[in-house]
Amino acid sequence: MRFGVNYTPSGSWFHSWLDLDPQAVARDLDQVAALGVDHVRLFPLWPLLQPSRTVIRDQGLADVLTVVDLAGRAGLDVVVDAVQGHLSSFDFVPSWLESWHRRNMFSDPAVVTALEEYVRRLSAALADRPQLLGVTVGNEVNQFASAPHPDPHLTDSAEADRWLDRMITAAREGLAGNDRAVVTHAMYDAAWYDDAHPFEPRHAAGHGDLSVVHSWVFNGAARLEGPLAASSVRHAEYLLLLTAAWSAAPDRGVWLQEVGAPTNVVPDELAADFLEQTLRSAATVPGLWGMTWWCSHDVPRRYADFPEVEYGLGLYDEQGRLKPTGERFAATVAALRGVGASPPSSVGLVLDDRPGSAYRSASAPGGSFYRAWMRTAEAHGRGPQVVLRSRVDEPDHLRGRGIATLHYVEHDDRAARDLATGEGSVGPGTARPARS
Amino acid sequence: MRFGVNYTPSGSWFHSWLDLDPQAVARDLDQVAALGVDHVRLFPLWPLLQPSRTVIRDQGLADVLTVVDLAGRAGLDVVVDAVQGHLSSFDFVPSWLESWHRRNMFSDPAVVTALEEYVRRLSAALADRPQLLGVTVGNEVNQFASAPHPDPHLTDSAEADRWLDRMITAAREGLAGNDRAVVTHAMYDAAWYDDAHPFEPRHAAGHGDLSVVHSWVFNGAARLEGPLAASSVRHAEYLLLLTAAWSAAPDRGVWLQEVGAPTNVVPDELAADFLEQTLRSAATVPGLWGMTWWCSHDVPRRYADFPEVEYGLGLYDEQGRLKPTGERFAATVAALRGVGASPPSSVGLVLDDRPGSAYRSASAPGGSFYRAWMRTAEAHGRGPQVVLRSRVDEPDHLRGRGIATLHYVEHDDRAARDLATGEGSVGPGTARPARS
Repeated sequence: MRFGVNYTPSGSWFHSWLDLDPQAVARDLDQVAALGVDHVRLFPLWPLLQPSRTVIRDQGLADVLTVVDLAGRAGLDVVVDAVQGHLSSFDFVPSWLESWHRRNMFSDPAVVTALEEYVRRLSAALADRPQLLGVTVGNEVNQFASAPHPDPHLTDSAEADRWLDRMITAAREGLAGNDRAVVTHAMYDAAWYDDAHPFEPRHAAGHGDLSVVHSWVFNGAARLEGPLAASSVRHAEYLLLLTAAWSAAPDRGVWLQEVGAPTNVVPDELAADFLEQTLRSAATVPGLWGMTWWCSHDVPRRYADFPEVEYGLGLYDEQGRLKPTGERFAATVAALRGVGASPPSSVGLVLDDRPGSAYRSASAPGGSFYRAWMRTAEAHGRGPQVVLRSRVDEPDHLRGRGIATLHYVEHDDRAARDLATGEGSVGPGTARPARS
Repeated sequence: MRFGVNYTPSGSWFHSWLDLDPQAVARDLDQVAALGVDHVRLFPLWPLLQPSRTVIRDQGLADVLTVVDLAGRAGLDVVVDAVQGHLSSFDFVPSWLESWHRRNMFSDPAVVTALEEYVRRLSAALADRPQLLGVTVGNEVNQFASAPHPDPHLTDSAEADRWLDRMITAAREGLAGNDRAVVTHAMYDAAWYDDAHPFEPRHAAGHGDLSVVHSWVFNGAARLEGPLAASSVRHAEYLLLLTAAWSAAPDRGVWLQEVGAPTNVVPDELAADFLEQTLRSAATVPGLWGMTWWCSHDVPRRYADFPEVEYGLGLYDEQGRLKPTGERFAATVAALRGVGASPPSSVGLVLDDRPGSAYRSASAPGGSFYRAWMRTAEAHGRGPQVVLRSRVDEPDHLRGRGIATLHYVEHDDRAARDLATGEGSVGPGTARPARS
């Protein structure tokens, strides 16, 4: 299993791409390597690399390679996200999608072709680097499917499939000859929890080499029963197991690509415990490919307008000092290294995904399915697997996943809807604080 | 009188700020200097200089100074626009005004304070350069007052005054000690022609050291009677004289900061004649401070998505060859140099600006006042001055401007409204092709 960190450059955050300072990057990456991790996730800024729909800057690609090679020198592998896109509440959208040039990012033919070309060119630039672990289409690109991001938005779930197919294919084309690197895409959790969102859990499980999950307990999970309750520290484990329900193959890998300890819902003094319990429970998930913590370095305070929570997510503080969460992270990673995968739970909790079922609000923190899963996990001492109602009659599917017992859950989501009105919560159609 | 060129860098247009190449800039500026002009107008990209509301990049400022100094070496003075903002149909808006951070650019207190700081810092960086002619708040920032630009938009004309006051003051503070440089702001012509636009002609005449005009005949003027008719080649002259009607002092300077030969309405074979006739008629305007042609270099074809007209506005083509308009421009500038200012026309055409008057649609190409002005100009062989109806009873005002005769115009703007439905035309509330 891989352990990594999402690399948020010290000093000037991702704006550092405008003034790339290899020495500063090398210092940061040495700090990351000192945590005992094996990889970093990197985030180019899309408008800087593709300032015109038809122009990709050679120097922009070269800058990414500079950081990739510095990571290699620090002993770190890299995964690189292409379309940023969205980072920590900020959108970076090129001028050729704004105002007079407003077009749908997911369906306009010229835009999709340009995105393919960008993903392909970036992947091709990276392809020969031995430290390349993988390419992700972009960070939570599904953010752009709905408000408050620039419209026009996406409403068609099949369009999302077509878009993902083309992006994944473009990355593979760019990586041609490199059979080791994984190609993935990443979504924020509206895909799992918001009944109206055009990206769906099946998109996580159905595109790319791994199913990618970002776990953020400010979505309501940490407020349900407190930051160290099961419903909070098991949220990452839950989301990974929930996602696996849509996998075609029982052995498809899952990647906890983002998980962090958000101090708006997890007080500083509990953050290290939250971190350790979260990583330990997630580590039990069968087929877990890796866990990548958000993030390496605190956002400097002189950069305004971030949601307050973003300033405190780093394992290193603004002065470059290792924080208590950083110490606990390093210790937890060391403890979890070499621990083999657990056998899967033989209990399958059945999620009613039949047409018309509001299965996503039921799955959301506070929803009936969410609560049932947490109750079962506490009763059994580990998280149950999740089985779709539409697949309970497939014996091979259940056998392949080692599921011997099915528990059915009846949806009743007044609770979820009530929760959705609370601060920092997420619910069907509810706006929520943005995350990377 | 000053003659200049709006500098559009060859090779990679304003995206060249991402990969500043001093040698390429020096080559470009030598070409500009060879036209016989005395100044260039420069356009930093705002999001590159102020990537965070509270951070202005030192290197961004240094890059601007590099170009300023290369201009000085080429024998050119410079005027620098701060807030771009909008250029040739493209918006460059920093991420701290997008999506989750969506705020009004003109009235949000934190945003206005940040803009002040940016204008002040940029002006301060430029202040000691002997080649600095002036600072403009930004290129057609009034574009952002209405659709299709990112909202929220501006609806309050008094708010526009407050915003302009603060930006002009910030520039002056930055320039402190430099008494030579002029401080200006620039608007596109919705301020003069669109009854619903919150920026108004009085904002051109009432803020900054000069009244700035951008003349673009694709607003309907060139289609009225053809590209070489008076209603087209006198458009710049008209807009300058129209603007002067709002000046408090009779001797306030006016600057034709942008004028070009748009090939969507002026065919290539007529462009040089259009250019010469436009400059010659504008040169007769009393108090004309300067004329600055748009633009130096054609937009390279490999940069997609520009309106077709934008690819052909340069005096040099994509291969760096002087175009026929470039030759004619140089010859016209040489011919006009040293020609003294004309005495003002003694005829004042009265524009009914009383409350409730749709004076802006009447002023727009095809509007009743526009047509009356053109008829008068043709009858007298020169453009009449414009007097506001609200000021006809001020003898000192008329005497100060040398106006002896008043002609009254009755508004009847069915014609203007009909014109507004035509392709490429402008009219009240009509969207129109964007321009720099």
